[in-house]
Amino acid sequence: MLRIITQQADVISELQRICDRTHDEQVLHKEATVREVLQAVKRQGDKAVLHYTAEFDHQTLQPEELRVTGSELDAAYQQVSKDLLAAIQRACRQIEAFHRQRVPKSWVHFGDDEVVLGKRYTPVDRAGLYVPGGRASYPSTVLMNAIPAKVAGVPRIVMVTPPGAGKAINPAVLVAAQEAGVEEIYRIGGAQAIAALAYGTETIPKVNVISGPGNIYVTLAKKLVYGTVGIDSLAGPSEVLIIADETANPAHVAADMLAQAEHDPMAAAILLTTDAGLAKKVQAAVDRQLVDHPRRIDTEKAIAHYGLIVVVESLEAAAEFSNEFAPEHLELEVEDPWTLISHIRHAGAIFLGNSTPEAVGDYLAGPNHTLPTSGAARYASALGVETFLKHSSIIQYSPTALEKVAGAIETLAKAEGLPSHADSVRRRVQEEE
Amino acid sequence: MLRIITQQADVISELQRICDRTHDEQVLHKEATVREVLQAVKRQGDKAVLHYTAEFDHQTLQPEELRVTGSELDAAYQQVSKDLLAAIQRACRQIEAFHRQRVPKSWVHFGDDEVVLGKRYTPVDRAGLYVPGGRASYPSTVLMNAIPAKVAGVPRIVMVTPPGAGKAINPAVLVAAQEAGVEEIYRIGGAQAIAALAYGTETIPKVNVISGPGNIYVTLAKKLVYGTVGIDSLAGPSEVLIIADETANPAHVAADMLAQAEHDPMAAAILLTTDAGLAKKVQAAVDRQLVDHPRRIDTEKAIAHYGLIVVVESLEAAAEFSNEFAPEHLELEVEDPWTLISHIRHAGAIFLGNSTPEAVGDYLAGPNHTLPTSGAARYASALGVETFLKHSSIIQYSPTALEKVAGAIETLAKAEGLPSHADSVRRRVQEEE
Repeated sequence: MLRIITQQADVISELQRICDRTHDEQVLHKEATVREVLQAVKRQGDKAVLHYTAEFDHQTLQPEELRVTGSELDAAYQQVSKDLLAAIQRACRQIEAFHRQRVPKSWVHFGDDEVVLGKRYTPVDRAGLYVPGGRASYPSTVLMNAIPAKVAGVPRIVMVTPPGAGKAINPAVLVAAQEAGVEEIYRIGGAQAIAALAYGTETIPKVNVISGPGNIYVTLAKKLVYGTVGIDSLAGPSEVLIIADETANPAHVAADMLAQAEHDPMAAAILLTTDAGLAKKVQAAVDRQLVDHPRRIDTEKAIAHYGLIVVVESLEAAAEFSNEFAPEHLELEVEDPWTLISHIRHAGAIFLGNSTPEAVGDYLAGPNHTLPTSGAARYASALGVETFLKHSSIIQYSPTALEKVAGAIETLAKAEGLPSHADSVRRRVQEEE
Repeated sequence: MLRIITQQADVISELQRICDRTHDEQVLHKEATVREVLQAVKRQGDKAVLHYTAEFDHQTLQPEELRVTGSELDAAYQQVSKDLLAAIQRACRQIEAFHRQRVPKSWVHFGDDEVVLGKRYTPVDRAGLYVPGGRASYPSTVLMNAIPAKVAGVPRIVMVTPPGAGKAINPAVLVAAQEAGVEEIYRIGGAQAIAALAYGTETIPKVNVISGPGNIYVTLAKKLVYGTVGIDSLAGPSEVLIIADETANPAHVAADMLAQAEHDPMAAAILLTTDAGLAKKVQAAVDRQLVDHPRRIDTEKAIAHYGLIVVVESLEAAAEFSNEFAPEHLELEVEDPWTLISHIRHAGAIFLGNSTPEAVGDYLAGPNHTLPTSGAARYASALGVETFLKHSSIIQYSPTALEKVAGAIETLAKAEGLPSHADSVRRRVQEEE
């Protein structure tokens, strides 16, 4: 049963408990395993990758089987329905259209005395996309990672995903990859896949940025290789926070909460509402909609542990609680969402109004569905084109311009005890005079 | 003596060795210490911070002494020269002017059927700036971290810096902080300061993003708290790579190399030149300029271990070697730097022409001097306003718009085995009909 709380004093501690749900006492132990996998792959390359694939994914591969072949890629198109292909293509177009907006452009500013300053944006040389297998094997994950890399102009995009039974990869995943422009795919997963992308092996190229969600081993591996390569973020279990007033439809709100809970027993679904009547109706609707749910057991677990309804005093109070939680997904199912949004400071994505269920954003509205979780929206943002771009500062001074700043630079360099810094300017200026 | 190599076959392995110079076999051991410090501060707050300040910084503080007082802040202005104050103010203005350019703005795009998509940028609530003490205690570091946070609109900016002898903080650092608009300063450093900023203590507020350079303990602590808070980057020792042709002045190139080497015995200074004559002249000039260098021993160490001159066959070949190295600082001391820059793919900052020594960028040209090191320029960029901003995706669909995508969403949700995702859309559409 989805709990309802009305005591405002309890709200913060409950939200804190849910926000911190990924804290895992076993992380240190798992980290030791991950370190071992990383070291082995770094030293032994393919051999270690194949070893761990047999151990963890129970698939015995030869090195030449690591890469998904052209005929498998072709065959995948025969295995998906026409409807699914059309839906993938539509999602692809809309995601690309959104990510093409406001791609950062290189620029220069011309100042006085022939000073030129600017930023030059360039894509990374190679990107590695991690796509989970098993329950979380989603074509939408492929699109949301591959399209930003493609739009950024990354010349080589490599995808990894663990092999399922019979070494096979989900055909919808293979179709989504091709529709997004990725054809270099390796059937490896887990920490060994992250290690292969970070260090390179005989078969797998070393990349510069690794993006994509995964289980706790994948996430720990990404944290450990961060610094050797860039990463998108450290993703935790998914979460939605819904702020609703009396205009919201309880059955819709309940469906949105279950759409979050069905992802994972660790998923969180929170409703903050000013309407005590709505709270009770949503509670009942969740129960009703769970009856026939194909993933009932896991979904119920999530609702029981990390589901919560809070009756709040005002929408502004709801916004403040939401800011404390900093949700990955925030739905504003209220009459006037464009007033309420002004009170929101931290959220990965904001869904406005009663006709914008999170599922629209998960699949095809266009904005990325890879979003900061577990409070990371306080400082982080959605995956995007920027994940695969970096910029170089550009600085050009003329002799005249250098002369005008020479004194200030010498003063600062001396104050910092860096004589050659001063010298490098003084020599140029003296000779110019 | 600065080595010159001419065998192209040796270049890549030498550059690799220099790029990887931070790899430290003792990191795991140090990480254990850092983990202990983090846990102690998380559990015991101020008490642990004071304990480690006594142990590592040899300063015994009371909790009420942690924060730098208003009278200390005032007094600092009496302790710096007028010239230094003017130079700090000038740097402040120019850094702010650059960082105010192209600050990301919130935007929306109005699509068909009343679809509204966009991104809303907001600053983090609290930023923590780490400013090292000791040899690397630089007012310029303060400016380069504080100004982007200020321009981003961060409402609360907290600075930490370890206390020196007599609990004192470098007055130039205190003046720079105030000029940049930071007045909340705590005299703590090391991993204990990072822990205090990440977890909060009775005295130190928990922040959302930590930026700023530090020693290996600080860097390890930043890596470990990443995920609890955001961080700017994992900074290693500094480096410059200079590409020069026969138009470069050997004494200037030598001064620029020493300006890098004088930072740290681990700093790297590399020259790639098409002119074998220049190579020899720079080698001799470095020797000459080292004779009276006030930091001769450490600077010589850096030059001996991580200094290198390579005579290359062409400027294009130099650019390719530079791309392999992905330098933090890249100087193009060539006749036509704006042609050569097209061949550059990875560099933190690029200094064009013979009148743009790196020192201009270190102090006051405007672009940030906190740059990716040790090859991180392959995927990372300078610290900037973006370090202290995040964005929320904005999605609003009308009933009509939702109806048009309902079929595609249902198809995708079914393919991914997520029935409530489909349900959350279908319920809304059916009732609209």
